Amino acid sequence: MSDANATAGRLQQVLDGPHAALRAEVRERLAGMDWAKADDMTRDAYRDQVLAWCRELAAAGVGSRSFPPEYGGVDDPGGRIAAFQTQAHADLSLLVKNGVQFGLFGGAVHRLGTKRHHDRYLRDLGTLDLPGCFAMSESGHGSDVRSIRTQARYDVAAQEFVLHTPDEDARKDWIGNAARHGRMAAVFAQLDVAGEARGVHAFLVPIRDEDGNVLPGVEIEDCGDKMGLQGVDNGRLRFHAVRIPREALLDRFGTVTEDGRYESPISSPGARFFTMIGALVEGRICIAGGALAVARNALTIAVRWGERRRQFGTGLDMDTPLMDYLTHQRRLLPAIATSYALQSAHDHLTASYVDVLTSPGGPEQRSVEAFAAGLKALSTWHMVKSVQDGRECCGGKGYLRENRFAALRADSDVFVTFEGDNTVLLQLVAKTLLSDYAAQFEDLDAVGMVRTLSTRQLGRLLSESGPLGRFTRGDVELRSTDWQATALRFREERMVDALARRLRRLTQEGTDPLRALALCQDHALAAATAHIERIVHERFAATVVAAELPLLKDVADLAALTVLERDRAWWLEHGFFSPDTAKAVQKEVNALCGELRPHALTLVEGFGIPDALLRAPIATAPQRSGAGSD
Amino acid sequence: MSDANATAGRLQQVLDGPHAALRAEVRERLAGMDWAKADDMTRDAYRDQVLAWCRELAAAGVGSRSFPPEYGGVDDPGGRIAAFQTQAHADLSLLVKNGVQFGLFGGAVHRLGTKRHHDRYLRDLGTLDLPGCFAMSESGHGSDVRSIRTQARYDVAAQEFVLHTPDEDARKDWIGNAARHGRMAAVFAQLDVAGEARGVHAFLVPIRDEDGNVLPGVEIEDCGDKMGLQGVDNGRLRFHAVRIPREALLDRFGTVTEDGRYESPISSPGARFFTMIGALVEGRICIAGGALAVARNALTIAVRWGERRRQFGTGLDMDTPLMDYLTHQRRLLPAIATSYALQSAHDHLTASYVDVLTSPGGPEQRSVEAFAAGLKALSTWHMVKSVQDGRECCGGKGYLRENRFAALRADSDVFVTFEGDNTVLLQLVAKTLLSDYAAQFEDLDAVGMVRTLSTRQLGRLLSESGPLGRFTRGDVELRSTDWQATALRFREERMVDALARRLRRLTQEGTDPLRALALCQDHALAAATAHIERIVHERFAATVVAAELPLLKDVADLAALTVLERDRAWWLEHGFFSPDTAKAVQKEVNALCGELRPHALTLVEGFGIPDALLRAPIATAPQRSGAGSD
Repeated sequence: MSDANATAGRLQQVLDGPHAALRAEVRERLAGMDWAKADDMTRDAYRDQVLAWCRELAAAGVGSRSFPPEYGGVDDPGGRIAAFQTQAHADLSLLVKNGVQFGLFGGAVHRLGTKRHHDRYLRDLGTLDLPGCFAMSESGHGSDVRSIRTQARYDVAAQEFVLHTPDEDARKDWIGNAARHGRMAAVFAQLDVAGEARGVHAFLVPIRDEDGNVLPGVEIEDCGDKMGLQGVDNGRLRFHAVRIPREALLDRFGTVTEDGRYESPISSPGARFFTMIGALVEGRICIAGGALAVARNALTIAVRWGERRRQFGTGLDMDTPLMDYLTHQRRLLPAIATSYALQSAHDHLTASYVDVLTSPGGPEQRSVEAFAAGLKALSTWHMVKSVQDGRECCGGKGYLRENRFAALRADSDVFVTFEGDNTVLLQLVAKTLLSDYAAQFEDLDAVGMVRTLSTRQLGRLLSESGPLGRFTRGDVELRSTDWQATALRFREERMVDALARRLRRLTQEGTDPLRALALCQDHALAAATAHIERIVHERFAATVVAAELPLLKDVADLAALTVLERDRAWWLEHGFFSPDTAKAVQKEVNALCGELRPHALTLVEGFGIPDALLRAPIATAPQRSGAGSD
Repeated sequence: MSDANATAGRLQQVLDGPHAALRAEVRERLAGMDWAKADDMTRDAYRDQVLAWCRELAAAGVGSRSFPPEYGGVDDPGGRIAAFQTQAHADLSLLVKNGVQFGLFGGAVHRLGTKRHHDRYLRDLGTLDLPGCFAMSESGHGSDVRSIRTQARYDVAAQEFVLHTPDEDARKDWIGNAARHGRMAAVFAQLDVAGEARGVHAFLVPIRDEDGNVLPGVEIEDCGDKMGLQGVDNGRLRFHAVRIPREALLDRFGTVTEDGRYESPISSPGARFFTMIGALVEGRICIAGGALAVARNALTIAVRWGERRRQFGTGLDMDTPLMDYLTHQRRLLPAIATSYALQSAHDHLTASYVDVLTSPGGPEQRSVEAFAAGLKALSTWHMVKSVQDGRECCGGKGYLRENRFAALRADSDVFVTFEGDNTVLLQLVAKTLLSDYAAQFEDLDAVGMVRTLSTRQLGRLLSESGPLGRFTRGDVELRSTDWQATALRFREERMVDALARRLRRLTQEGTDPLRALALCQDHALAAATAHIERIVHERFAATVVAAELPLLKDVADLAALTVLERDRAWWLEHGFFSPDTAKAVQKEVNALCGELRPHALTLVEGFGIPDALLRAPIATAPQRSGAGSD
């Protein structure tokens, strides 16, 4: 057992990554808080409790880490993303409310504002003396920010902006902190200066006074009861010709002079827009991280119960833990392996994102944005599946509210469709891949050409000769990281290549390019998924090499073979797998499940989630197995 | 539109099947009830409201239909299953509570009891003047009834049974109606007569008096808050040497004389046991039906919203309904097609079950039991996926409680693991298939041999020659019902054959048979699924032929090709598909989605769910599309 503990400790080190100390500190603080007290509260009381928790953490400096030291922070973006993720183990309403306050509202003031906004607001924002909103989404435009319709006209005589909601489609919707606590909102609106449209800009609009009274011209509506996240006060906002001073424009990337001239350091409106909505990228990274944490809670509870719960007289010995059953292993162990792989990729994404923050506008920026979008999609779907499978593996016990699956699932479900609907995000990834593909052929350097040709040649070779003998079981090393990588790269490149050809054919036939993409939507999503899964594999492989922990290599093999098994039809169809290889992959997944089964508990202990955050009676004290049925 | 209405009407006729008039009557009654009033109730108030609804329906004769006419019923088992399913469109707590009262408790009294029990209880049971429980499951034995441990010792001197809970594993758990309303329980316990174990029997045990006070010796605990179904008062029961009269034994299949002799019309204890737990079969049929109804609610809401909601500027025209997107079609249309197919199979199952009820013990009984188990598993997983995809397709709107996905999902989730965990049920199917397989070779008649040989020869042919040219796209009629049937039959027979060989090899090597089955668990589940999907296809094909509605043929093709696409790797691995066939199947699914897309609304109107039961603001009045964003 001490060996297992040591291994679990090593696993946790790997998983905690570069921000291990900070994660430990946040975990300890969270574990000391009383989460159960909110379990039976009314909706409004729960919302107030969540605000109180946010303030408690803010007082400890967890939220304001986001800001520069002169405003009470530490200027550590990687740390704030890690700290955010850690909160997801505790309460998701807390997570989302903190995300709204510090990531979205705070992020807008910090990154879109200038020194006068920072001086005036950041300190109060960091202590939550100024709770605020991020008012971007509109009822008619969830996923397409560029088309929002809220108006911001500059009145040069009064030196004020006039914020106005022209119709119901332009109503701000789903705005966190709006229904109850927000005093100010960063409102995204179409700037109109002297009759000229200057595109989407953000404005700071007071919405409530210090006593909580809604201000004149502002109309606020509660979104009402939700499936979960009842501790977050989502609301709808309408503005009726609300006047705000000229200084309320967050003007780092575009300003309006007193006499009504528009000036921007970024000449292209398109580039300006993407710079301004950069906050969404961090939001997606954070949601992906939160989703991975939720999945780990669910898998920990399910494995601990699977070790304790004995199934009598149904096939194996009289006293067989559920975890000994193959179906149980197949539902939980691949999900655990995938959890490790995705976290490794998430760490890499966070580091790349921090690099881009330091030097924005570089060539890395677009690929980071695409990877954030794709990893958000894959991580949140991984979460939905893990929570569902975890619940089912716990049977009736999993259906009892005390065992936490009810909240884990209801609170997290919206992750799949907010901060960008997963389907829309994967299309965004596909568009980036297609641009890269086009660029590759316009501007092909020597190295790029070799790489392109070699995989292309492999593709041709395979398609000409059909299933190759050398890919049958005897010759393939299924646990070779290189072979797995080749398979994943082959799939990605073939899919993107085929997608590009289909699109070219359609457009040559006269189809509008965007319509052509819509016609190939399933293909585009598959290519995007293939791209993200290839990167996840590469990042985790690098982590495994660095960790020098043999168990982790098995975990990586299971994660990779789970992908190869799930989509084995594709590799069969494209001649990369022979039928025997495809069958061998399935057998190998079973074999890996058998090998990892004795380490199931160690693998979830490596997640390092304190019992005080799991809060599931069926998941406490796995050591005492056999002491009773529950 | 009137054409579409006429088609929707025809579809509904097909779906409503032989009990159309009864379904219409129940639907109309349900649509007239006020469901919204329970939305904000406390748990106890909601439980009482559900009881009141049950009484209201009972007064209208919906529940007591189960019983013979002399006790207020109509003796129409097929009708009661259809009526039960229809209730699932309204409120699932109502559904489950009614299921406990009439299907389980009532079913036990009716089918395991004799005339004196019927005379004494059935009328009060039918009016809900006698709310009761079905106390079978124990904490230590969820899925294995034969191993329950509650004791029932016959005390010959007192002519009483002594009911006793020996330990915590023997505590009755998850018993509906126990925590608040039940006055009597049908308790399943191990009968001990003069020191001889007589196996599991059912006893009627009073648990509360008329004022609701718990009776001496009975201990009742509330299971507490659940993920959903909060309107059902699940509880735990313990018995401390509770004495009940000799007549309290439900003694149709086994009785104890005054002087302590045990007598049974069924000599084999095994056969007696299976006869007595027959009620579980009907429970599974009912849960499968309920799950299909829930899926239809979710899909109706999602399609109506997908028609209304416009997505701007993301690829197609400026004003494109979500339903025009391929990803949206691919998530909803195959699920709709599968819903039609599964309902058709469910009707067939119900009819076969009624036949078996009329003449029990025949050769059909085992196959009906297996099909009920398997269809319950597939239908409930279909439900989980449909509700999840439906929610995601509705984005943030789907996350609002008012749009019903929250309740649909939380209330129904337990269907997957109760009345037999899906994994366990599919293993039961696999065991039946293996017995049939063994019997086939012992006792092969001429017809059977031809059938077996022909598919066997096909298999050999395929495995010897590899992917056959004639199965490539040009030659295969993907929309040929016969070809689809051949593919499904080939898969089932090959899987069962391979499973039997693997098991024989393992047992020949000395592995215990049950352990061998556990080692092949994933294989067994796949074979069971293949078996059920083959029957579903056959039943729906027969329905389509009878219906003479061209649209329904497209629906059937989409349902079949969805299965062939999902598991195409298997057919590729076993030489039944060439890579080109596999690719053609995917293209054909896309083509069918395109063809059925204009009929999406018609297909869900065919589900015939009144707005008053859908109760989702985003799903009302699809005609008024474009009148606003929500």
